[in-house]
Amino acid sequence: MWSPFRWPWGGISRPCGRRWPCRQARLWSPPMPRGWRGKSLHKTPHVPYHTPIMTPEACTLTLQSLPLFQGFPAEVMKELASKTTVSKHPKGHMLFQHGDTIKHLHIVTHGWVKVSRLTEEGDEAVLDVLTAPHPLQIMDAIAAPAWGATATVAEDAGFFSLPINLFKATLNEHPHLALGLLQTTAKMHQSLQRELEGRTLQKTDQRVGCFLLRLVPNPGDTHPATLTLPYDKTLLAARLGMQPETFSRALGNLKRELGITIQGHTLTIPNLKSLQAYTCSACSGTYPCIRSTQKA
Amino acid sequence: MWSPFRWPWGGISRPCGRRWPCRQARLWSPPMPRGWRGKSLHKTPHVPYHTPIMTPEACTLTLQSLPLFQGFPAEVMKELASKTTVSKHPKGHMLFQHGDTIKHLHIVTHGWVKVSRLTEEGDEAVLDVLTAPHPLQIMDAIAAPAWGATATVAEDAGFFSLPINLFKATLNEHPHLALGLLQTTAKMHQSLQRELEGRTLQKTDQRVGCFLLRLVPNPGDTHPATLTLPYDKTLLAARLGMQPETFSRALGNLKRELGITIQGHTLTIPNLKSLQAYTCSACSGTYPCIRSTQKA
Repeated sequence: MWSPFRWPWGGISRPCGRRWPCRQARLWSPPMPRGWRGKSLHKTPHVPYHTPIMTPEACTLTLQSLPLFQGFPAEVMKELASKTTVSKHPKGHMLFQHGDTIKHLHIVTHGWVKVSRLTEEGDEAVLDVLTAPHPLQIMDAIAAPAWGATATVAEDAGFFSLPINLFKATLNEHPHLALGLLQTTAKMHQSLQRELEGRTLQKTDQRVGCFLLRLVPNPGDTHPATLTLPYDKTLLAARLGMQPETFSRALGNLKRELGITIQGHTLTIPNLKSLQAYTCSACSGTYPCIRSTQKA
Repeated sequence: MWSPFRWPWGGISRPCGRRWPCRQARLWSPPMPRGWRGKSLHKTPHVPYHTPIMTPEACTLTLQSLPLFQGFPAEVMKELASKTTVSKHPKGHMLFQHGDTIKHLHIVTHGWVKVSRLTEEGDEAVLDVLTAPHPLQIMDAIAAPAWGATATVAEDAGFFSLPINLFKATLNEHPHLALGLLQTTAKMHQSLQRELEGRTLQKTDQRVGCFLLRLVPNPGDTHPATLTLPYDKTLLAARLGMQPETFSRALGNLKRELGITIQGHTLTIPNLKSLQAYTCSACSGTYPCIRSTQKA
């Protein structure tokens, strides 16, 4: 049994089993407060602690709150939680690669993860950029022995990882749970169909506009809406299936035509209705639609 | 109870209940042999017969052979078959429309069906063109009360239609069947992801080449491969998300670069390897891949 380690500036971690210093240990430490900055870390015990503590009860509760596990009985959740690994990875970390054998079902608990595929020529197609509470490539996990895409951390992210054999055994033991899962996966599929429609019919400006509309916190607003871009613009362009320069040009057009203003990652839309009229006319759906970040 | 009607030139139909003459009655008649051509139909009894006979046993067997129902026990299939409607529709018939309430789960038994969406501006995005033994928009049927797309017959097609309530009740009664269905839907999702990747990274020539490669009867062939285009070129262009003139240009490029020859709907690829090298370099998969017509 591990014993908790308290960082000198507050925060609790548990040992990772690797040699100190390790990069993750530094990442898992809570931010060092102002008073501590500049003080040598060598004055604090050199113990390799880096996974934040999550009690089995907390893990069960968090898992139960995920849409993926809606309807799963408490005792099943308890067993799943006891085998679940909690981890956190920095930006750039590759969680799994296209073709790797599937060992775990990963669920994003915070941060952003890029799901992409690489061609023989080295071009990358970003299939999706996901945040909590999304399972990663769940369809692969259900139907295939190997991953059909690569998952890379786009903004420091946390994961719940369930052994895939345990997940499949649970489904076989409690087949009625597959019905709920079928609903979840059906919604993902519908969302992917919407994506395909958008890439076929919408112009680049409209695709960018559509993405912005889905980020608006209150779609019913009549006042100017302010929103924050969730990740960097290069990734955003790739997520929308366009080159960074095309994305910048599209954003420029929206700024000129609809008076949208941008300051760093913060964006203000003065009139939601006119953006909707411009964007949603090239879509078969009606606004507000399901957000790209709320698929599952 | 209906009594079978034998067409004077062979073939059996059953009454439709509509007034003669109806278009379907003519469609459901087997082709009139040479000896009968020119003879007046008025010499034959004017009875409105047009649905071909399918005995409950034949219906059960056909349903059981579909990938969708793999693993369904015999007695369940018998009950499903007893409630299944068999129908056939001519090219252009709209089976259901985006937004219609879902009443049946339709499975294509022959012919081709276009699944598409129409935007407010009147543009059409073709999501897929399906043939036997595909269920139509099964994800909608599972998760939504209304269809998320429109299905139109592209080449005279036949359908099995199961009442959706019966299908859902069967799944609730035999939840282990949902596990098999989950596998089927997962494969469909993976196929849609491949489609999205192709639309993002492949050039139009490569997308056309990719489609042709999937139609090749024996992918391992070293001799020239001959194949038949399954439906007309305008629909084919829409299926690949491009304008008809872009499609013609792409096909022209392939003819010039790789020596592909076209006569009507028949196409000959002199060297499969060079077409693979040209097309598959912009794809993350390896050839031969799962065909677009073998998703479920």
